Amino acid sequence: MPDEELPFDKLHEECGVFAVYGHSEAANLAHLGLHALQHRGQESAGIASSDGKLIYTFKSMGHVADIFTASVLNGLPGYMAIGHTRYSTAGDSSVLNAQPFSVSCNKGRIAVAHNGNITNAAELRSELEDHGAIFQASSDSEVILHLVAHSNQRTLAEALREALMLLDGAFSLVVVAGDSIIVARDPHGFRPLAIGRMNTAKGPVYVFASETCAFDLIDAHYIGDVEPGEMVIAGPNGLTREFYTLPDRPAQCVFEHVYFSRPDSIVFGVPVQQSRELMGRLLSEELPIQADVIVPIPDSGVAAALGYSHASGIPFAHGLIRNHYVGRTFIEPSQAIRDFGVRLKLNPVREILAGKSVILVDDSLVRGTTSQKIVRMVRNAGAREVHLRISCPPTISPCFYGVDTPTKRELIAANQTVDEIRQFIDCDTLAYLSLDKLSMAVRDTNAESHFCYACYTGKYPTELVNIEELMTSRPNRC
Amino acid sequence: MPDEELPFDKLHEECGVFAVYGHSEAANLAHLGLHALQHRGQESAGIASSDGKLIYTFKSMGHVADIFTASVLNGLPGYMAIGHTRYSTAGDSSVLNAQPFSVSCNKGRIAVAHNGNITNAAELRSELEDHGAIFQASSDSEVILHLVAHSNQRTLAEALREALMLLDGAFSLVVVAGDSIIVARDPHGFRPLAIGRMNTAKGPVYVFASETCAFDLIDAHYIGDVEPGEMVIAGPNGLTREFYTLPDRPAQCVFEHVYFSRPDSIVFGVPVQQSRELMGRLLSEELPIQADVIVPIPDSGVAAALGYSHASGIPFAHGLIRNHYVGRTFIEPSQAIRDFGVRLKLNPVREILAGKSVILVDDSLVRGTTSQKIVRMVRNAGAREVHLRISCPPTISPCFYGVDTPTKRELIAANQTVDEIRQFIDCDTLAYLSLDKLSMAVRDTNAESHFCYACYTGKYPTELVNIEELMTSRPNRC
Amino acid sequence: MPDEELPFDKLHEECGVFAVYGHSEAANLAHLGLHALQHRGQESAGIASSDGKLIYTFKSMGHVADIFTASVLNGLPGYMAIGHTRYSTAGDSSVLNAQPFSVSCNKGRIAVAHNGNITNAAELRSELEDHGAIFQASSDSEVILHLVAHSNQRTLAEALREALMLLDGAFSLVVVAGDSIIVARDPHGFRPLAIGRMNTAKGPVYVFASETCAFDLIDAHYIGDVEPGEMVIAGPNGLTREFYTLPDRPAQCVFEHVYFSRPDSIVFGVPVQQSRELMGRLLSEELPIQADVIVPIPDSGVAAALGYSHASGIPFAHGLIRNHYVGRTFIEPSQAIRDFGVRLKLNPVREILAGKSVILVDDSLVRGTTSQKIVRMVRNAGAREVHLRISCPPTISPCFYGVDTPTKRELIAANQTVDEIRQFIDCDTLAYLSLDKLSMAVRDTNAESHFCYACYTGKYPTELVNIEELMTSRPNRC
Amino acid sequence: MPDEELPFDKLHEECGVFAVYGHSEAANLAHLGLHALQHRGQESAGIASSDGKLIYTFKSMGHVADIFTASVLNGLPGYMAIGHTRYSTAGDSSVLNAQPFSVSCNKGRIAVAHNGNITNAAELRSELEDHGAIFQASSDSEVILHLVAHSNQRTLAEALREALMLLDGAFSLVVVAGDSIIVARDPHGFRPLAIGRMNTAKGPVYVFASETCAFDLIDAHYIGDVEPGEMVIAGPNGLTREFYTLPDRPAQCVFEHVYFSRPDSIVFGVPVQQSRELMGRLLSEELPIQADVIVPIPDSGVAAALGYSHASGIPFAHGLIRNHYVGRTFIEPSQAIRDFGVRLKLNPVREILAGKSVILVDDSLVRGTTSQKIVRMVRNAGAREVHLRISCPPTISPCFYGVDTPTKRELIAANQTVDEIRQFIDCDTLAYLSLDKLSMAVRDTNAESHFCYACYTGKYPTELVNIEELMTSRPNRC
Repeated sequence: MPDEELPFDKLHEECGVFAVYGHSEAANLAHLGLHALQHRGQESAGIASSDGKLIYTFKSMGHVADIFTASVLNGLPGYMAIGHTRYSTAGDSSVLNAQPFSVSCNKGRIAVAHNGNITNAAELRSELEDHGAIFQASSDSEVILHLVAHSNQRTLAEALREALMLLDGAFSLVVVAGDSIIVARDPHGFRPLAIGRMNTAKGPVYVFASETCAFDLIDAHYIGDVEPGEMVIAGPNGLTREFYTLPDRPAQCVFEHVYFSRPDSIVFGVPVQQSRELMGRLLSEELPIQADVIVPIPDSGVAAALGYSHASGIPFAHGLIRNHYVGRTFIEPSQAIRDFGVRLKLNPVREILAGKSVILVDDSLVRGTTSQKIVRMVRNAGAREVHLRISCPPTISPCFYGVDTPTKRELIAANQTVDEIRQFIDCDTLAYLSLDKLSMAVRDTNAESHFCYACYTGKYPTELVNIEELMTSRPNRC
Repeated sequence: MPDEELPFDKLHEECGVFAVYGHSEAANLAHLGLHALQHRGQESAGIASSDGKLIYTFKSMGHVADIFTASVLNGLPGYMAIGHTRYSTAGDSSVLNAQPFSVSCNKGRIAVAHNGNITNAAELRSELEDHGAIFQASSDSEVILHLVAHSNQRTLAEALREALMLLDGAFSLVVVAGDSIIVARDPHGFRPLAIGRMNTAKGPVYVFASETCAFDLIDAHYIGDVEPGEMVIAGPNGLTREFYTLPDRPAQCVFEHVYFSRPDSIVFGVPVQQSRELMGRLLSEELPIQADVIVPIPDSGVAAALGYSHASGIPFAHGLIRNHYVGRTFIEPSQAIRDFGVRLKLNPVREILAGKSVILVDDSLVRGTTSQKIVRMVRNAGAREVHLRISCPPTISPCFYGVDTPTKRELIAANQTVDEIRQFIDCDTLAYLSLDKLSMAVRDTNAESHFCYACYTGKYPTELVNIEELMTSRPNRC
Repeated sequence: MPDEELPFDKLHEECGVFAVYGHSEAANLAHLGLHALQHRGQESAGIASSDGKLIYTFKSMGHVADIFTASVLNGLPGYMAIGHTRYSTAGDSSVLNAQPFSVSCNKGRIAVAHNGNITNAAELRSELEDHGAIFQASSDSEVILHLVAHSNQRTLAEALREALMLLDGAFSLVVVAGDSIIVARDPHGFRPLAIGRMNTAKGPVYVFASETCAFDLIDAHYIGDVEPGEMVIAGPNGLTREFYTLPDRPAQCVFEHVYFSRPDSIVFGVPVQQSRELMGRLLSEELPIQADVIVPIPDSGVAAALGYSHASGIPFAHGLIRNHYVGRTFIEPSQAIRDFGVRLKLNPVREILAGKSVILVDDSLVRGTTSQKIVRMVRNAGAREVHLRISCPPTISPCFYGVDTPTKRELIAANQTVDEIRQFIDCDTLAYLSLDKLSMAVRDTNAESHFCYACYTGKYPTELVNIEELMTSRPNRC
Repeated sequence: MPDEELPFDKLHEECGVFAVYGHSEAANLAHLGLHALQHRGQESAGIASSDGKLIYTFKSMGHVADIFTASVLNGLPGYMAIGHTRYSTAGDSSVLNAQPFSVSCNKGRIAVAHNGNITNAAELRSELEDHGAIFQASSDSEVILHLVAHSNQRTLAEALREALMLLDGAFSLVVVAGDSIIVARDPHGFRPLAIGRMNTAKGPVYVFASETCAFDLIDAHYIGDVEPGEMVIAGPNGLTREFYTLPDRPAQCVFEHVYFSRPDSIVFGVPVQQSRELMGRLLSEELPIQADVIVPIPDSGVAAALGYSHASGIPFAHGLIRNHYVGRTFIEPSQAIRDFGVRLKLNPVREILAGKSVILVDDSLVRGTTSQKIVRMVRNAGAREVHLRISCPPTISPCFYGVDTPTKRELIAANQTVDEIRQFIDCDTLAYLSLDKLSMAVRDTNAESHFCYACYTGKYPTELVNIEELMTSRPNRC
């Protein structure tokens, strides 16, 4: 799962969502759920709660645990709530972009939060602006709200259905509308959205979350996923499910399994712990090598490194120690310290590394700059050989479905061969997990694939207008 | 001028606006201007600056001096800026309602702030919602932006002109649009909006502000007012002025002179210091009485009390001392202290009051509850007689043009005779300044009045839909 | 009274003290009392409360109203408390120097706060250090505590008595010791210390404060002063008073009346309001002049200006308006604004000043730099003539008894004649109140004077070791 | 290493120390060193720097990374510095107890910080108080300073030497005195204190720290430990080492290896990573059992669990996932969530645990309450059998040498048999590492032991006055 505030060379997805219907402490449950989803975004968080009449909203920059004090939660009454935790992308860091967005329109009051990226957002915005819409933020959630407001349908549910059909790209959506919670997933099902249920004295409570770890904390149990193209309404009549459109070819984001989700979550029906362990096992078959020790790059490389160790029999050890305390104010001394930025986070354990042939396992390699520093640090700690293994294929294409990727020009694997990368990083050998093996690890073994591997293949599951432009800029919506 | 954070029985207007065009440190000038206008609203403040291409916005809860740090100002580049300082009304206290509002729409990027109250805002919102508009806040600024976006006119200036013609009520508006600053005042000219000019090495700089005290701080000089119904554009072609509509009967808010503006401002062309002094002089003619000392209720009653003293020859003294330090955490001891809330703010000077016949001068009397406590405190300090004089007529009607008034039911003068009020307050005599004399004090002596006296007469200068409803609720826009 | 956070050319005294015995909400009363004394120091504040067994202490940088939240007050139980509010002097701004100091020693637990300056503190520190004392701060309170601890007396009261006899200089002291509150004043009585009494259902409550305005807020009544050389104990046996030493020639700080105290306080038995009024009246006799208007420099010059006006018949007007909102982040635009620092605080009212011969009244003139700017500002507002009047004699000597004065070299009147000062300030005439008249104003009319005028005469009431050194440095204790 | 802000049933040591001599950015190096030592105390932190003349000190509640901003570091000039990070113990949580303590005394200015617990502090305080010392805090550092001040020796070094000889108990001390850094360790060497060296263009720089991980971050290399009973001076003459007293029987705290230190540190000359690995290996020999998986209680049980796995061949897996985000505001819903407090921190991975026989490895077991909840959580996740293994012997006695232990009455192993504990915790089997094996793991294999095992044996290496009293209270110094 993502390293908190790690200034590292990682891909980041944007945002986590949560929703709950039918509980007298809805906002507090949302608070707890968001805490479990904190790794999906640390810039800002928000909750919108409702008693079926009014909608109460609070959002702020910062961490979930710091934002939702008792007095803030007191100001969020009602039996239903949605919540959002947001990842920061350059240039749009402002509470204006925090979610949920809560508005009044001709269909009543409505609050929306989403996880993903609408690939035709620019076109929709432009069209909506032509019809007089005004945009206060750069979030796609605002686009969705405008589509709802401009719809000719009469009810919120109908208008929302119509709006969803206009969207291209990735979105897992949570909505408070009238007396109901409505959630939906795009027809490809890029981003996850799980359904949970709590049984209380007053009847069932329905919860929805980006990851099932949010259910564990509040004692809800996972009952399945919102399906691609499905809209689920939790309201006075219980749970109603319908397909607002025909599901398209499933294209679930494989990166959720590679890196983004917590290992204790079930994502797309597959336990993340298992898929990662298997990635590691299969990775041991790529360019097999004799070595003394397997060392993960913490925290995200741990599960694959263990799998590698189990399969290869090479012992596993924590040869790099992570300092979890973070801050912003570190000043490098004028007599520079080598790899200062990495060292504030990671420290090698000389006793584990000295004189050894070391296999480092990481879950991804984006620009290569951090890996270079880590390899150097491991060598300086006395490692005889350093072999780097990545538990996914080379990242050659940017993501337009919600993962914050650098431009193609910055992706080292898009521009260099594996051996060139190895030379840049200065490791003895470098190997990636092949696409086939990654598919096996996430159990994507049907004739028709259910996953999106675009970042590894460049084959995007949706048509992309302006792909040239997309390739050279960083879409930063959530 | 208004007492900062005073939990007193005062009417409050909502908000101050500022704009500047043509200065390389536009945002800093806006910061300084807003500091001078801080008395017009202490809840939140914001600035939107622009270099003609992008608009940069920062708003936050709190005081101007605390919000706009050097690093915040660094994030607000450009040669033009608008700013706003907002007064808090119950129920809408949130950064979501802070101004300016900055959006993108079909006419480009635009930022708006205003001071006043659009009386047909609810109707316009409803109509705009019918056409698909969504509202994120309860501010009328958002209504104005939607009207601009929905206009069929092609340029921002034209669209704004069209939008303004649809508005009823009170508004003094500042706008950043394209490469220009646009400001406007409603056809009745309820709220003030002054024009200033700074001469710099690089040419003239134009500034606009609710009050001229904002010019003094930055060395700009006052060159007149934006006229009722006028729109002024400061842009690459200098200053252009035009009437976007026929001016209506002028209805300038007399309460700006009675209480709201700073005494060092010129408002509606009349120095506030002078009008207040004259109110006091004329007040001495109402129910003239022999007394030992004139004591103002600080700070707002001072100027009128001095005028009273000058006219009557009765000596003036600061018999009530104000504690300017404020905070929110005072806990009354369980053995209650009489008039605790008032005492945290005001302390009587026994040496001035004891054994004396005292004339207390205040600028307004809304519910009467605070006056009652002050009179009691003055008596307890030994005053032999207490005579209360109010430097305006009895407040009998709520304001719908931007002053935060309680409902008619709460206005003591709307429900009781002067003598009943005197009994409630328990003073020896009570007198108000007559309407005629108030008119004289503000130099409203033409055949046709230029001021709005609706709060004293109940005669509203505009047609009001739903007046019944308005009378019993508190409109809280800015 | 002192201008809050005013970056002006004013002398500042250091600190206010408060104590209460016998009330179940002692800490809250101390909180309220300190709020009333806030003008005596805005850097830090602290309260030490006790139930007779333990002492609870909380101190922090900042304003009283911000520091003592409900939860902080909850942590300060007990039936007695002392409090302190501290003025910041350069170089020692740290919570380490905040008072009260609370320690355990061989005589038990004890907490101390004081107002003043021990002139032999350096010698005592050095001697105490020779005997092994360690000093953690630069506050004289620590010296007093060490003297208590090093005393051979057995009880806290006796040890305190012995300690007090070793101190030279100015001190008004409040102490929590065992089951009692002990307060004391130096033998000259430099600094004020008033006694108040509240009658409650559970018997009398005794309070002590630097100024009586602290009593007014909590409904206590003033019953007199702690006498010079007196020690007063409020404990289980009620109030006991004794002289711990022979009182010396009284030398009460006249500057308390000139500037420092609130006008609603009684200080040294004389209402401050009255003495200031009289200063103004008598000031009108110094270099009498025809003029159109009397304008005070707010807030501290107001009372004297009114007295001047009453005596001379020349009308009084608020020709300079003060902005009470303060902050630290104002950045002067690069095209400099003349007198920017002063303007952030004061704005001239052109209508009052233009074309007029103006008498400006201020309560003191230290370096002359601010006065110069104010005169220039008044002239720029159109004044025809500007006459400056100071309601005390020329300040020619630094204070070593608790007022924060610049060094002799910086005091303009110590180095220039009145006419040279007039030229520097560029006013038409300049006059000071004579020493004789100041004495009359504070009722110091006995054969033997009861006041200290050292800042105006250079005649210090105590012997000063190292006077050369003192003259060129700024003592910064409290 | 200790879990940050973990509200768990763990023993905690108090504090980490750091010192540096001879670097122009001494305070910044101290900042970085303290960041690496942050796990040793998260309540408050402080740095005292010096240029040989003045000492500059800053301390504050909170985390190192938040406290030492660029502007704070600017206020800490000089070529030497000491730093301290403090662990919070109940009842003394206040900035008053933050270290270093910086004072002036008859030997000059001196600043001190220490890690440990002086067992005769109460006696020394009482004696010092008899001689007039006053104590402002409850920290033992203050006692040390008073001893220095009361010494008849003339130089700081000599006085410090004398002072150290009077202390009983555990202390690793860092001092700024005059133009030198002085560090010392108690004669038993309870707490660690390592020496490091940086080679710079301007010559060698000496650093000292509780753990060597602080050297790694700043590129210093470990050159050995300060010996028990040794005092090391880094000053103008380079490094001088001397024994200020005869070293006593070494009694190094074994708990540093069991739990407290970071695995990437070398403590007492032994890499912590290695000792913990070995503890796990040897633990596998205690009550060996067939099981499906080894699961550590993160983060501190990881290293031992890996050792257990390596030795036993039973696969290791992260079956409990830790949420590193922490906060204080979580409110349990009124329909209680089982083991809510533990769940906010740990979440079981069902895929790893379900149907399995699980060996849980933890590094200590204090009261047993948290273990009970974790076992229940693991069972609820489907584990068939749960076997708990502790990588140290039963904790039966409180520590008086710097580890924050509950009273004997609260230590479950002091009051119950292993089988009773097993029943309480409700695990299938429970086993502890034997004392012999723990000794082997930390290489304490000489005839004479070099470690203190008092918490496991009750045999204290020093004579303890008032042992009865100590057993029932919680000493809370640092």
